[in-house]
Amino acid sequence: MATNELFQYSVVSALMDGVASNGLPVSALLANGDLGLGTFRHMAGEMIVLDGRAHQMKVDGTITPSDPDVDVTPFAMVTRFRPTATVRAALPSKESLAHLLDRLFPRSRNAYVAFRIDGAFRSVTVRTAEGQRFRGEGLAAVGARQVTHTFGGGGGAVVRGAAVGFRSPAFLQGVSVAGVHLHFIAEDGERGGHVLALETDGEVDVGAAALTRVVLELPADDEEFNAARLERDSEGIQAIEG
Amino acid sequence: MATNELFQYSVVSALMDGVASNGLPVSALLANGDLGLGTFRHMAGEMIVLDGRAHQMKVDGTITPSDPDVDVTPFAMVTRFRPTATVRAALPSKESLAHLLDRLFPRSRNAYVAFRIDGAFRSVTVRTAEGQRFRGEGLAAVGARQVTHTFGGGGGAVVRGAAVGFRSPAFLQGVSVAGVHLHFIAEDGERGGHVLALETDGEVDVGAAALTRVVLELPADDEEFNAARLERDSEGIQAIEG
Repeated sequence: MATNELFQYSVVSALMDGVASNGLPVSALLANGDLGLGTFRHMAGEMIVLDGRAHQMKVDGTITPSDPDVDVTPFAMVTRFRPTATVRAALPSKESLAHLLDRLFPRSRNAYVAFRIDGAFRSVTVRTAEGQRFRGEGLAAVGARQVTHTFGGGGGAVVRGAAVGFRSPAFLQGVSVAGVHLHFIAEDGERGGHVLALETDGEVDVGAAALTRVVLELPADDEEFNAARLERDSEGIQAIEG
Repeated sequence: MATNELFQYSVVSALMDGVASNGLPVSALLANGDLGLGTFRHMAGEMIVLDGRAHQMKVDGTITPSDPDVDVTPFAMVTRFRPTATVRAALPSKESLAHLLDRLFPRSRNAYVAFRIDGAFRSVTVRTAEGQRFRGEGLAAVGARQVTHTFGGGGGAVVRGAAVGFRSPAFLQGVSVAGVHLHFIAEDGERGGHVLALETDGEVDVGAAALTRVVLELPADDEEFNAARLERDSEGIQAIEG
């Protein structure tokens, strides 16, 4: 993979259909990119890939380094990230991040954008998924049991950390998650998850790049994937991943 | 590109939205595969890629070799084709081809299948598109002016030739054309087009391979693509490309 190409394993619709028993070894994922996000076998927790290392953010709030030779991902997106735009910006909300990316890449409305945010956050609200309770349980049901945490938030305390993710084009809803999708990990390496809401503490560093070349690897010889309906459930995806 | 990976430039929804002023040089397309199909700038005619060469099948019925250094494609799909299944089969219809591919690749229902058919046909009905009459004219309107030809057909005459194409998974409708999509070129190199119907003259050679790795290159710095709505018009695509 060259820089700023998207590598994606499987599709979000497959997670919606509960396809999470098998997947790509994390070692193979990291061979294709150094920044990104995803999940683990049985949707157990959230994955963040930062500086070439994958971390597993679990529902109990702990974070452990992923063992690339042992762990497997049923869905992930990574890129060999080299930002083509870097700005300092205050982000009062997740929506303001989406607007910033729109402004930075006005000619990439129908492309992907990868981004990384580094700095201090007044608050970051994340969720982590506990994972499937039975084989084939869909993402909507898994997500209904998600645990949320808010870091920072109140009394002037801030949390420093990094958020990474992708803005995916609307027409690829179901393949990816349309719109902005990001995961956060605190600088202390002990807190993180799928970002539901954020507010930066003043300006933070935002690096981003538009991605127009996508390598999509579909699960092969995977009976669950083969049997999946993969209908585009835009409302369902928005509810659980938006 | 390794063998049996799909390389695709742009998406069918972009053609539906009339995005066809620019595109990928055919030379760059052929660097990614030796078998496939697509169209040309302004949707002028049908493209077939066979044995590493691209041909332009025009509305007047003529076929000319594409000049890879001059021609540009706004949409095409190719693969470096190495069949993993080869069979002799009689195909009374396009539907029977779809059923054959289902039988050959029962575990690839949600993957792509590339195929090539060589032999004698009792009849092949094709269409060729005249192309856009104005910038931005959509595929449905362009297709409404398509010209159809039936080769073979009647009196025991047969037409020998090759048909190549892809079966795309239903969940990627709009990215590609869901279901079977194939183009035909006669052995004499003088007749061909987008296949609407076919009937083989007894058994023909069918080679096919499942493709699970997809490289999708989206148009970059293309104002038409950037402005396109790219809504999934499944009925529209089925009507014009089915």
